[in-house]
Amino acid sequence: MADHLSIALLGSKFMGRAHSNGWLQAGHFFDLPLAPRLTVAAARNPTELEDFAARWGWGRWTTEWEEAVTSDDVDLVDIGTPNHVHRDQAVAALEAGKHVACEKPLAGTLEDAEAVVEAAERADVRTFVWFTYRRVPAIGFARRLIADGFLGRIFHIRAAYLQGWGGPDTPLVWRFRKEAAGSGAHGDLNAHIIDMARFLTGEEIAEVSGAIEERFVPERELPDGGGRAASTVDDAVLFLARFTGGAVASFEATRLATGVKNSNRIEIHGERGAIRFNFERMNELDVFDATESAALQGWKTVQTTHPEHPYAAAWWPDGHWLGYEHTFVNQAADIARSLGGESPEVPLPDFADALQTQRVMEAAIMSARRRAAVDLEELGR
Amino acid sequence: MADHLSIALLGSKFMGRAHSNGWLQAGHFFDLPLAPRLTVAAARNPTELEDFAARWGWGRWTTEWEEAVTSDDVDLVDIGTPNHVHRDQAVAALEAGKHVACEKPLAGTLEDAEAVVEAAERADVRTFVWFTYRRVPAIGFARRLIADGFLGRIFHIRAAYLQGWGGPDTPLVWRFRKEAAGSGAHGDLNAHIIDMARFLTGEEIAEVSGAIEERFVPERELPDGGGRAASTVDDAVLFLARFTGGAVASFEATRLATGVKNSNRIEIHGERGAIRFNFERMNELDVFDATESAALQGWKTVQTTHPEHPYAAAWWPDGHWLGYEHTFVNQAADIARSLGGESPEVPLPDFADALQTQRVMEAAIMSARRRAAVDLEELGR
Amino acid sequence: MADHLSIALLGSKFMGRAHSNGWLQAGHFFDLPLAPRLTVAAARNPTELEDFAARWGWGRWTTEWEEAVTSDDVDLVDIGTPNHVHRDQAVAALEAGKHVACEKPLAGTLEDAEAVVEAAERADVRTFVWFTYRRVPAIGFARRLIADGFLGRIFHIRAAYLQGWGGPDTPLVWRFRKEAAGSGAHGDLNAHIIDMARFLTGEEIAEVSGAIEERFVPERELPDGGGRAASTVDDAVLFLARFTGGAVASFEATRLATGVKNSNRIEIHGERGAIRFNFERMNELDVFDATESAALQGWKTVQTTHPEHPYAAAWWPDGHWLGYEHTFVNQAADIARSLGGESPEVPLPDFADALQTQRVMEAAIMSARRRAAVDLEELGR
Amino acid sequence: MADHLSIALLGSKFMGRAHSNGWLQAGHFFDLPLAPRLTVAAARNPTELEDFAARWGWGRWTTEWEEAVTSDDVDLVDIGTPNHVHRDQAVAALEAGKHVACEKPLAGTLEDAEAVVEAAERADVRTFVWFTYRRVPAIGFARRLIADGFLGRIFHIRAAYLQGWGGPDTPLVWRFRKEAAGSGAHGDLNAHIIDMARFLTGEEIAEVSGAIEERFVPERELPDGGGRAASTVDDAVLFLARFTGGAVASFEATRLATGVKNSNRIEIHGERGAIRFNFERMNELDVFDATESAALQGWKTVQTTHPEHPYAAAWWPDGHWLGYEHTFVNQAADIARSLGGESPEVPLPDFADALQTQRVMEAAIMSARRRAAVDLEELGR
Repeated sequence: MADHLSIALLGSKFMGRAHSNGWLQAGHFFDLPLAPRLTVAAARNPTELEDFAARWGWGRWTTEWEEAVTSDDVDLVDIGTPNHVHRDQAVAALEAGKHVACEKPLAGTLEDAEAVVEAAERADVRTFVWFTYRRVPAIGFARRLIADGFLGRIFHIRAAYLQGWGGPDTPLVWRFRKEAAGSGAHGDLNAHIIDMARFLTGEEIAEVSGAIEERFVPERELPDGGGRAASTVDDAVLFLARFTGGAVASFEATRLATGVKNSNRIEIHGERGAIRFNFERMNELDVFDATESAALQGWKTVQTTHPEHPYAAAWWPDGHWLGYEHTFVNQAADIARSLGGESPEVPLPDFADALQTQRVMEAAIMSARRRAAVDLEELGR
Repeated sequence: MADHLSIALLGSKFMGRAHSNGWLQAGHFFDLPLAPRLTVAAARNPTELEDFAARWGWGRWTTEWEEAVTSDDVDLVDIGTPNHVHRDQAVAALEAGKHVACEKPLAGTLEDAEAVVEAAERADVRTFVWFTYRRVPAIGFARRLIADGFLGRIFHIRAAYLQGWGGPDTPLVWRFRKEAAGSGAHGDLNAHIIDMARFLTGEEIAEVSGAIEERFVPERELPDGGGRAASTVDDAVLFLARFTGGAVASFEATRLATGVKNSNRIEIHGERGAIRFNFERMNELDVFDATESAALQGWKTVQTTHPEHPYAAAWWPDGHWLGYEHTFVNQAADIARSLGGESPEVPLPDFADALQTQRVMEAAIMSARRRAAVDLEELGR
Repeated sequence: MADHLSIALLGSKFMGRAHSNGWLQAGHFFDLPLAPRLTVAAARNPTELEDFAARWGWGRWTTEWEEAVTSDDVDLVDIGTPNHVHRDQAVAALEAGKHVACEKPLAGTLEDAEAVVEAAERADVRTFVWFTYRRVPAIGFARRLIADGFLGRIFHIRAAYLQGWGGPDTPLVWRFRKEAAGSGAHGDLNAHIIDMARFLTGEEIAEVSGAIEERFVPERELPDGGGRAASTVDDAVLFLARFTGGAVASFEATRLATGVKNSNRIEIHGERGAIRFNFERMNELDVFDATESAALQGWKTVQTTHPEHPYAAAWWPDGHWLGYEHTFVNQAADIARSLGGESPEVPLPDFADALQTQRVMEAAIMSARRRAAVDLEELGR
Repeated sequence: MADHLSIALLGSKFMGRAHSNGWLQAGHFFDLPLAPRLTVAAARNPTELEDFAARWGWGRWTTEWEEAVTSDDVDLVDIGTPNHVHRDQAVAALEAGKHVACEKPLAGTLEDAEAVVEAAERADVRTFVWFTYRRVPAIGFARRLIADGFLGRIFHIRAAYLQGWGGPDTPLVWRFRKEAAGSGAHGDLNAHIIDMARFLTGEEIAEVSGAIEERFVPERELPDGGGRAASTVDDAVLFLARFTGGAVASFEATRLATGVKNSNRIEIHGERGAIRFNFERMNELDVFDATESAALQGWKTVQTTHPEHPYAAAWWPDGHWLGYEHTFVNQAADIARSLGGESPEVPLPDFADALQTQRVMEAAIMSARRRAAVDLEELGR
């Protein structure tokens, strides 16, 4: 490895754009030990891919991901494809001795995730997962506060990732097909907030205590207009959990929360204070300090754009907002730092870490099916 | 029954004040078919009670609630005592042929609640329960919107009643003793939001699908300074549920949500729109109309102080806020209207209705104990 | 004066209700040295007045205010009539040796206000003005913070009282007739925020530096349907000012701020911190402490319902909101305390104090007419 | 002109970065008729400039701006320098036949601005000014709504641009020196909101009706530690104005609004509705529709990330926020479109347009000095 970090990107859709932008912008704003080099992009549709590669400046492109993954001039394989192909791509890259940065969730199934982690253990490389919400300055800052004891003992964690785009009129894109996505809102959204809750608290989930898995819309229009077919993933998954430190928690992921576009929110209450965050106000962290004098206690909204907040010094003067894509730039910079021998500004999850999140996802589904439900008719309704 | 509604009040603490104020103020702001008359107040401490009765203008007072409940000059018995005495007082009042208005929850246990409902069925009187949040204008208005089809099919209900006053330093008041309170946050707070969710949607809860019951603080200081003793109620109860119309729901009640004083909040998402409410902004209802053109969709904050909103015409000009106590005045007015042959402005719950809420509470506890929990160690953590 | 404070109320409309409620409720929530007694109510329409007096429990009523004002059994005359009669009623009450509590503004014109103050100086009684926003707990608390140095040197004051009910379709009620109201939004709304800014900062306005007086709607429908007539008051008055301590300020009052029901808002920035308040969130005060560490600075929302906040201990447990009418109850309690030899919880304005506010109002109108305007055509537009 | 738009950038500080990023990113997200080419960057410090040029990919660099401005391979000169050099640079570029995009304000003085406009009139090129807040999607969308009649007749405009970084401890950077900046908060911040108010309403300011110009901090530490010197610009300018359509308005710019980082806010009330915007919530526009039924009226928060909102389709899926820098990318794209023969997505201001804003700025200062102030001592305080 020299002064550059040579990258092969797999995928050219939403995540392909976000990752390309991340690698391109990282060097403009951060001083990095390794300069990201956009070496090769791989995807299936050659026409689209050619345009994509030209627009973002990828050195070459290929419809054969295996070629990109094993190419000698590649240091890092960046996986931005649907969940069901993560396993094959990651294992191939690991076996080729490449570092791997994989989109979340780590895989479509727990079995796949375990296989990927085993491959990573056999390889002498670094792995990363794009849990990009860790890289929101407010979240990185919240983690630092919590690690410093701001909350004391934690009582409550209340996490929800709500979107509203998945109503009955939404066509059957790949995200609604189990064979491609593995799950619906669960892998798409719960994965993020499980990671975020674990990351913020520094604790693990000890048990899932109850769950609901729901498909409100059993079939949808095919995107190409050829009639209707079954939607085979969950539309929503809710679960309750206990953390290793004794906190109780609720998690909810849905794509049918009408009126909500992209609300990734978490509230944590501890003995000494509380924090809350909503990605709809991503440049803000709300904090409550219960050790202040009673008449002056209140929720305080901290704008996390000050140079003392994570990543903020790299961007604009205090008070100038960041947006969605910046979390990818921040992660690209932290990966380059890590591979260049420096510390990331905020800790990065590797595959083993992401496997824990995948296990929680699995436990939620098991709990939903184990059904400790109490029918109200038992009680005479 | 004549032009007056003669009342016997049981209890002189927080609820005693709130009810007294409700009966007194109702006639100042509403035109009522029956004028509330504050006939007799009953409580245990004669010194406090004498002051209380004088301050609020109760005609007489007694430390023997049985006397008040059976007195000839009483039309309505208003029960504002701790939960464990509701049963005896309500049954005695019903057997004496009095109308009864009981504080929530209906009783400390499901068994007591069932007994009270049976007594009510035998009596030829009217019963009411002080689920006063129904009488927030925003909630009454939301119910009307939902009944008119504003939401369409309902997908999600997300209810939480959070308070933060019950940390480890809070002494062992009666609310922490099971024999007096029946339960902790569950009966105190979940009772309200279960009623509110049922009331708003017009649906029943079909099953409780999973639950957590938690006591974070096992023992507390005695209020009189005589050492420590066990706290025997829950500090928090969370549960998941399914409604009869297919919606999935989460409920959470806690008194250890540090930083939150009194947040009774609910969000409901349907196919055509969504609503949300937080008692911390009690004069506001947020609505989302998904049938508007895409570029103009958004959450709209309606100040529910317009004469067209429930109760608002009785109070001040549009834009002048109501507070906590007004919900009791509104309920007092609606009870007087109901007993005077008029319709309440917003539907009132009777004992049978409140029994449904009590059953849901019981089902949540049963579900928590049935334990469909999945230990993460099962999955190799 | 004995154990009671015997009151004559003049006026039975909006303010008549608010004052009646204030006197009635004060004794229910506060421990007062003098118990308000509702002795006599005076207004012009005997039919309405009889109902009004019965509803609120006034001992007697009269259509002759002079009789009420001079009656031997009256200690305090409470003036809740339109502005143009304040002078005659206040002077008569003062000459009869009565304490006087007058609605704001003190009078319809500066000349009338000066006459009233002169009469007060000659009388050996106490005077009060119903600048009730001082009695919002958040405002009383803010004043205490500022007096304690929380802001340091003050740079900016930004006050606006916006309402939106006065559009072209609103009929010509008395508030739009100069002979009755004296002015429009200026006396109705600017009076409040001028008082509030003076009260909060403890400073006086040294100069008005520029102003706009505007009448958007020159004529309106008569309320009784008899055609249209001229609206003779301002619809909006904006002015800029300098305070004695060097701060610069802006004030705006309007009744044509479409979309705003009742937003009385103020923001104050000083060298060490800042505060902001909006009556639409009347139970909250936002504070900013610039002496905190940079990464933790932010606007903090304090719910002013804690027993340490002004008035809050008298009402409900922490976290239970007050509404509009409570400011009148708080003021009634403070007047009773003052006349009973105790200190008010928050300082009360007397007539001399209110005269300063009236002078600022006059200066704003003078400045608007002095016209230092720069026409853009001078600059070649 | 060919397929590329060849750019010379003057300035390498805050604006140099923002413009470089704008030109670089425009082509990644927008389909442009001309691809921006980063040809040459000019600034004074060769060491810093070399790094800057390398980081952003400028083809070459020079410390002689005259060379860059007149170079044959340059199509557009982009001026991102302090205000006092805008005139010489813009005139030189215009005389060399280059298109010019100039940072705001157009110049440090009205005289300079007029000279620049005259030079532009003589040249056969296009001119642009970086009033980037027009390019916030919410603002572009608001303009469209207003042009479509959403507000009807406009009554009130309330604009403020508040920052809080300029307290007494802030050193004497160039922004506090009149010879470099021309003015303080006035040119820095009022320029933006004057442009925004004109842009949104489509009206001009007819007169400035009163103003305050204030310098709270007369001297400051020199940045290099060599003692203190005079701060020669305003710290705050407030003014009142009337628009050609009859609306009244207030404007305020300050850098001493303690607690506020970067709040560019505007509220506009009309006969049929109202809008409000705060750059602290830059992805949101609040709208109020006064033509809705009364019970459902309210302020609605529209997230302006839907493909139907200006610029949003170019970026991320609905619900994914943009940040500060995106306004520059949007403007770069619109300049490239305009020069390539297409329409900008949102109208662009040219020099003649910006001259109007400069005239309003001048009128405000004239009004402040004309002094129609009314000293309260005139009224007997």
